Amino acid sequence: MKTNAIYAQSGGVTSVINVSALGVINAWNELNPNNGTLYAGRNGILGVLNDDLIDISQIPPHIIKKLRHTPGGSFGSCRYKLKDLKTQRLEYEKLINVFHKHNIGYFFYNGGNDSADTCLKVSQISQELNYPIKAIHIPKTIDNDLMVTDNCPGFGSVAKYIATSIMEAGLDLRSMCSTSTKVFILEVMGRNAGWIAASAALANTMDNDAPHIILLPECTFDSELFLNRIEEVINNVGHCVVVASEGIKYSNGKFVSESVVVDAFGHAQLGGVANILAQLVSTKLNLKCHFAISDYLQRSARHLASSVDVEQAYKVGYYGVKYALEGKNAVMPYIKRISNTPYQWEIDCVDLTQVANLEKRVPDDFIDKEKMHIRKSCLEYLRPLILGEDYPPFIDGLPDYTLRL
Amino acid sequence: MKTNAIYAQSGGVTSVINVSALGVINAWNELNPNNGTLYAGRNGILGVLNDDLIDISQIPPHIIKKLRHTPGGSFGSCRYKLKDLKTQRLEYEKLINVFHKHNIGYFFYNGGNDSADTCLKVSQISQELNYPIKAIHIPKTIDNDLMVTDNCPGFGSVAKYIATSIMEAGLDLRSMCSTSTKVFILEVMGRNAGWIAASAALANTMDNDAPHIILLPECTFDSELFLNRIEEVINNVGHCVVVASEGIKYSNGKFVSESVVVDAFGHAQLGGVANILAQLVSTKLNLKCHFAISDYLQRSARHLASSVDVEQAYKVGYYGVKYALEGKNAVMPYIKRISNTPYQWEIDCVDLTQVANLEKRVPDDFIDKEKMHIRKSCLEYLRPLILGEDYPPFIDGLPDYTLRL
Repeated sequence: MKTNAIYAQSGGVTSVINVSALGVINAWNELNPNNGTLYAGRNGILGVLNDDLIDISQIPPHIIKKLRHTPGGSFGSCRYKLKDLKTQRLEYEKLINVFHKHNIGYFFYNGGNDSADTCLKVSQISQELNYPIKAIHIPKTIDNDLMVTDNCPGFGSVAKYIATSIMEAGLDLRSMCSTSTKVFILEVMGRNAGWIAASAALANTMDNDAPHIILLPECTFDSELFLNRIEEVINNVGHCVVVASEGIKYSNGKFVSESVVVDAFGHAQLGGVANILAQLVSTKLNLKCHFAISDYLQRSARHLASSVDVEQAYKVGYYGVKYALEGKNAVMPYIKRISNTPYQWEIDCVDLTQVANLEKRVPDDFIDKEKMHIRKSCLEYLRPLILGEDYPPFIDGLPDYTLRL
Repeated sequence: MKTNAIYAQSGGVTSVINVSALGVINAWNELNPNNGTLYAGRNGILGVLNDDLIDISQIPPHIIKKLRHTPGGSFGSCRYKLKDLKTQRLEYEKLINVFHKHNIGYFFYNGGNDSADTCLKVSQISQELNYPIKAIHIPKTIDNDLMVTDNCPGFGSVAKYIATSIMEAGLDLRSMCSTSTKVFILEVMGRNAGWIAASAALANTMDNDAPHIILLPECTFDSELFLNRIEEVINNVGHCVVVASEGIKYSNGKFVSESVVVDAFGHAQLGGVANILAQLVSTKLNLKCHFAISDYLQRSARHLASSVDVEQAYKVGYYGVKYALEGKNAVMPYIKRISNTPYQWEIDCVDLTQVANLEKRVPDDFIDKEKMHIRKSCLEYLRPLILGEDYPPFIDGLPDYTLRL
């Protein structure tokens, strides 16, 4: 009997997670010896639990090809964490029933830290419940916070988008600052790890260029130091561009975004970080301030994807299948940097126990001593990840994002 | 003696205002008969008032060329409105002194409605203060709200950026909605005119595609109807993408955003619509909601400029000089649509009195009867404006935005 496989997408999606799906599909078609079927779980592990599977072999090749340039998770994703085998045995039995029914021998889970944990748990079914499965985790997260791997697929494209956006908004602000707005704040994703905020520093190609201040969740936010620094930058440069991670905290451990803004009716408003900072700047420094919040735009901006990111997303998918067919279980293909100039990298394999639930934050030696910018070492790390443009095809002035599965 | 000219940029900048500058420069170099000098006023009319001029002929051609792909206003812009001749005669005498000193015969002002008014006032110096000057207004505004012209340079590129962003964020939301976020809101610019919000509808390439709701400043905002519509969309589609103009108002005439942030002077600041709407959705409908605010990112996104927009921005600059040298005064080159398919247009000339201080809003017959989306007629109008990609050159993974004047 043929041994089949399931691929599923999990957690917050990226602009290149579908490229990993394509890597899995192509590797499966090229490498699997017994002509088994590759299924996709609809909406991540939920599609597996509910036996809601898509037979990928039934999708025409010209549709499959579109995975390469379509952002979001075309098979659907989910935020759902399996508990451990002991407390949720029924859930695992449900899984095994579906695996049995479709004779699934391989499970490829495409996600971040939480999904690595889910994948690890599925891999344990082999030993603990005596169902033979190879579970492989395909890394993906815009947060760039997975351990072991040099960087995470999805991140390079966000970095390219954020750095480009800061260059553009910085030039806009520079044009206007003589009589109008003096401060611009961009809020970016990153609740615990500040990699995305750090990547804005790539926009710094000339002296006095934006961003002038970068606020990382790795550093305590001090409003007085922040405002002083803004005044200093305005005195020197005439305007100030700030990039803030959504996850910055005060010294008491409270998220800045949890601060309360009271509206005209006296109701407490949920402020985003950018709102809070903008209000600080306008009330305390009396400066005109604009702010933007990138939110989903940053992680879905396939129109500005990095070629390096696209290639790496493909390779981790491809190698995931390769490792599984070689008999590996509970591992993750990861990106190993060989050199900076020229940028060289390769795919290697790591045990999931070294990745699941762990988190790689921006290290101290990448952060400026005043804690409001990053160091050159961080830039050297970031630079290769945004290299190359990989534009989607355009039809009538818009990207061809017509893939719906 | 040579007759010289001044070009200046005014008001909020765009991703292609520098392309109009290039059109002015090239036309001046090609068409002006007496080899006069073209100056740029630094920071708009302020540079003229303060005799802070840049001699454009001194800038090397390989630097000038970069105007074509650099967003923001490279000569600096300003928000400064001249009062009329009677109340501010001294200011005008200051202007004339600078004109005299540099023997300026032509003034090219690149801006929106307010700048058209400033340009009109400068043009009146000829008659009222007996200084011979030809003042030409070069249109530019992302708001697309100038009268007479079919569309405004700067707008097409914003429209392309917003429609692309909504496609991308829409696919992201679609992936996540089974277990996580159900509503996504994007706040866009547009205080009085909803053209930018309307342009998001271009993302609607397939049934049930985002955006599902568009809130225009032309229509009264009713929170109950809004929430009902969201529920309806969620029931049908599973998720809901909303695009909201910053300038939407309640039936009592108050800006929706005014309930959020009050600045140091006690002035309400626009830019909080998304927060208010997101809070409505999460508290009244108990749905997980994400929101983004594009702010300066939308109007400076040169990396995703429309080719049509770039070409039109160039032409209005070029024709501005042509009209001036033909002896015209107090006019504006504008874009006249000849046909939709194929899209054809030409440049014509209109008297500034028909443009200054006036505003073109989205007309009723472009708006859906439920006032929460636009009609096909509006799409037909918008479609040609985003055609073609005009990518800037990239260096090391980022656009070459190294122009500093």
